[in-house]
Amino acid sequence: MTPEEFRRLGHQLVDWVADYRAGLAQHPVQAQVAPGEIRARLPAAPPEQPEEMQAVLTDLDRIVMPGITHWQSPRFFGYFPANAPLAGVLGDLVSTGLGVIGLSWQSGPAVTELEEVMTDWVRQMVGLSAAWSGVIQDTASTSTLVALLCARERTTGYAMARGGLQAEDRPLLVYASAHGHSSVEKAALLAGFGRAHLRLVPCDGTHAMRAEALAAMVEEDLARGLRPCAVVATTGTTATTALDPVGAIAAVARRHGLWLHVDAAMAGSAMILPECRWMWEGIEGADSLVLNAHKWLGVPFDCSLHFVRDPQHLVRVMSTNPSYLQSAADGQVKNLRDWGIPLGRRFRALKLWFVIREQGVAALRARLRRDMANARWLAEQVAAAPGWRLLAPVPLQTLCLRHEPDGLSGEALDAHTTGWAERINRSGAAYLTPALLDGRWMVRVSIGAEATERADVAALWQAMRREAEGGPAG
Amino acid sequence: MTPEEFRRLGHQLVDWVADYRAGLAQHPVQAQVAPGEIRARLPAAPPEQPEEMQAVLTDLDRIVMPGITHWQSPRFFGYFPANAPLAGVLGDLVSTGLGVIGLSWQSGPAVTELEEVMTDWVRQMVGLSAAWSGVIQDTASTSTLVALLCARERTTGYAMARGGLQAEDRPLLVYASAHGHSSVEKAALLAGFGRAHLRLVPCDGTHAMRAEALAAMVEEDLARGLRPCAVVATTGTTATTALDPVGAIAAVARRHGLWLHVDAAMAGSAMILPECRWMWEGIEGADSLVLNAHKWLGVPFDCSLHFVRDPQHLVRVMSTNPSYLQSAADGQVKNLRDWGIPLGRRFRALKLWFVIREQGVAALRARLRRDMANARWLAEQVAAAPGWRLLAPVPLQTLCLRHEPDGLSGEALDAHTTGWAERINRSGAAYLTPALLDGRWMVRVSIGAEATERADVAALWQAMRREAEGGPAG
Ligand SMILES: Cc1ncc(COP(=O)(O)O)c(C=O)c1O
Ligand SMILES: Cc1ncc(COP(=O)(O)O)c(C=O)c1O
Repeated sequence: MTPEEFRRLGHQLVDWVADYRAGLAQHPVQAQVAPGEIRARLPAAPPEQPEEMQAVLTDLDRIVMPGITHWQSPRFFGYFPANAPLAGVLGDLVSTGLGVIGLSWQSGPAVTELEEVMTDWVRQMVGLSAAWSGVIQDTASTSTLVALLCARERTTGYAMARGGLQAEDRPLLVYASAHGHSSVEKAALLAGFGRAHLRLVPCDGTHAMRAEALAAMVEEDLARGLRPCAVVATTGTTATTALDPVGAIAAVARRHGLWLHVDAAMAGSAMILPECRWMWEGIEGADSLVLNAHKWLGVPFDCSLHFVRDPQHLVRVMSTNPSYLQSAADGQVKNLRDWGIPLGRRFRALKLWFVIREQGVAALRARLRRDMANARWLAEQVAAAPGWRLLAPVPLQTLCLRHEPDGLSGEALDAHTTGWAERINRSGAAYLTPALLDGRWMVRVSIGAEATERADVAALWQAMRREAEGGPAG
Repeated sequence: MTPEEFRRLGHQLVDWVADYRAGLAQHPVQAQVAPGEIRARLPAAPPEQPEEMQAVLTDLDRIVMPGITHWQSPRFFGYFPANAPLAGVLGDLVSTGLGVIGLSWQSGPAVTELEEVMTDWVRQMVGLSAAWSGVIQDTASTSTLVALLCARERTTGYAMARGGLQAEDRPLLVYASAHGHSSVEKAALLAGFGRAHLRLVPCDGTHAMRAEALAAMVEEDLARGLRPCAVVATTGTTATTALDPVGAIAAVARRHGLWLHVDAAMAGSAMILPECRWMWEGIEGADSLVLNAHKWLGVPFDCSLHFVRDPQHLVRVMSTNPSYLQSAADGQVKNLRDWGIPLGRRFRALKLWFVIREQGVAALRARLRRDMANARWLAEQVAAAPGWRLLAPVPLQTLCLRHEPDGLSGEALDAHTTGWAERINRSGAAYLTPALLDGRWMVRVSIGAEATERADVAALWQAMRREAEGGPAG
């Protein structure tokens, strides 16, 4: 494809994206396809000869689009907001267009330096002290894995340079909230700790980790000769946006030398609001934290911000320095390959730069406040409607709720709950996520797509009432 | 930004990318900035109020562009080709524009199913049997880490579900070529094996792993009561594109139950050429392999293809299944979050689809053959020129060479070598990578940027002669 052909097709595809975004409300939110349907429409073998790009674009509409669940839709209330504002789309286009790989400072100095400055902008936006240094990872899952690797190596005094974790004789332990994200368990298992050495700390009535329970577990483990290594606290758990008491957990961590990692993947975005900062009070006592700019804040995926207090330790754990990656500038610069797992790195800071400048921090704050007000409004409706129940506090933008008709409980209630949620999802009118809470199904309503306004939330509420109250079991 | 503003700015940025690509030859290949220069030109704090996008675009040219090393330049001969063809840029634009997150099949069915079909297309293109299943990871570094985690869990019978690696009493060992990529060492250390349990197998005169040496080491370790776990073979090492004898290594692996992972990050692209397939003969005996579509093959970064023989084992190691990620379709579909570390996943298969269809496999083959012919041509020039020496065979597109003026050796020769290479890089005329080989500096010339034609290689050769033969120490 020549630059001239790209110019023509690029304009066409920019228009395609513009039309897609302008028409989002017209799509059923959930993809309306059965398993295997998309695959069956694709040729089983690659083409030997070039095809017309127009044919590819036709297939994009015909084959791919029916298989898209529309995360950018104003009626998307599933999982979490994964906003991809159009300014960020442009920043990412420049990144792919440049095709520069930031495997060292020298291989693309702007890749490293813009990332330094952008992570520092976000640091300031969320009110962290200058003692933190940031880097962009792909996801919170990866950031948490890197954090637990750093914890493992701090506790063992860099066992990796000797016999590794397998040569340690007293087992290391990781503590996490019973309501922590599945990525915490995954990270602990991948880092080699083993399920038997992952302690799930009990929670209080708001599903937040109980710091005294943590303290008691750590002391008991110490008494048994085990080695408490790390604790992961969550600011905004996935199911209910519960807020672990970071300050109290940090005090336990400090007392016993545990690494404290804070998973603020979702709720970290809200820390741009001064009125929300109490939610992670004590954060300065953590060793590392992760905040997904690719969620509510609105930088196109992937853009997970990983902050650490001791970048030298991070580099010592993650670095390799073969000759073919060395350069004369090495002493004076950061080589961000040594801050994470991958060697090659995309120019992801561009999309942060485009989004923050195009929006301005004030507008980002206003959008998040809008979403929280919408969540409060819906919470009021739910609380006031007979038969409906809120199952958890709503500190941010996620509601956990159930419609509990008289006389329905146990598995019948579960069937009712998943039934009405599935009917809404299948209808395409909106999309929400059923989840288990305390052993029973409930429905999560996660508000915060960029396009979602009060009217969309009101329409969702109507659909919920219609499907739950009027449905088969309603 | 409204869709209409996006339309206008998007056209402008598409033109910007088109102009950039059309004018690539005009840029000095290596960024001409000093450490800290870009950072110093950026505001230290984020803007409170929105800024004009035109100001951002002006800053893109003014601040960012001087800090770009031009990987897409026809005179880029550094590291490895990281081609980002314009069709792939369009595919990626669609991905970001859709903003869909493939964290489960249901969250975007097309994300999963197009990825299934595209990895299968590549499987066929490189001549692998249907016994392989593929998934897209970000990088080879991550793929190799995942492979070693799978190895660790197979050898220990899923220790992760019990006490983890730390509860194993007989140490597990990983074997790799002394010329393996730094990501292999990094993966072994991160996976918890420890440096003392990473065995570097000696190489032959072509820098390929000696399979008998591997066999001897494994037998000795077994005799000492240790547990050989995995071996990583490389098809196309980074420094010299050496080819480890995969078949002979697979035989050792089979005999002793080792996991065989093949790192074909760079050279895997060449397996679309039937005449190159001898290079990884025996590949069907491997358990996993990685092939970076984002290198020579030419799919914009990141797009690393990870193939496995036993996807169920991979899923057992990598899966988590909390209720908030479950869906009714789960039994019938793949959830690719369980094939890697991250939960959230971009729609990366689109760029593969766009590139393969726009080019056709025949044209991809022709481009790679062009690059290999250019490498052979340059090898002939070097071999014929007095004072110049090729240091390794040139099976693909990378040359390792030195200019060795009479009487120069040891550190003086090193200074000469890094001197002329640095002068070329600093001049901006071309970009190449100095690296150590057998303890001495040499220069790697990696041919294969999409835009590189014979004339560019000839111009490089002239610049090399000029700088080396006419330089201070020449
Ligand atoms: C609290 C929390 N942690 C971690 C994650 C995982 O995010 P990622 O997809 O970036 O790994 C999520 C969201 O999915 C989350 O809500
Ligand atoms: C042989 C080999 N393995 C692994 C890598 C690492 O690639 P990535 O940046 O995808 O981790 C490279 C290239 O840098 C390589 O040449």
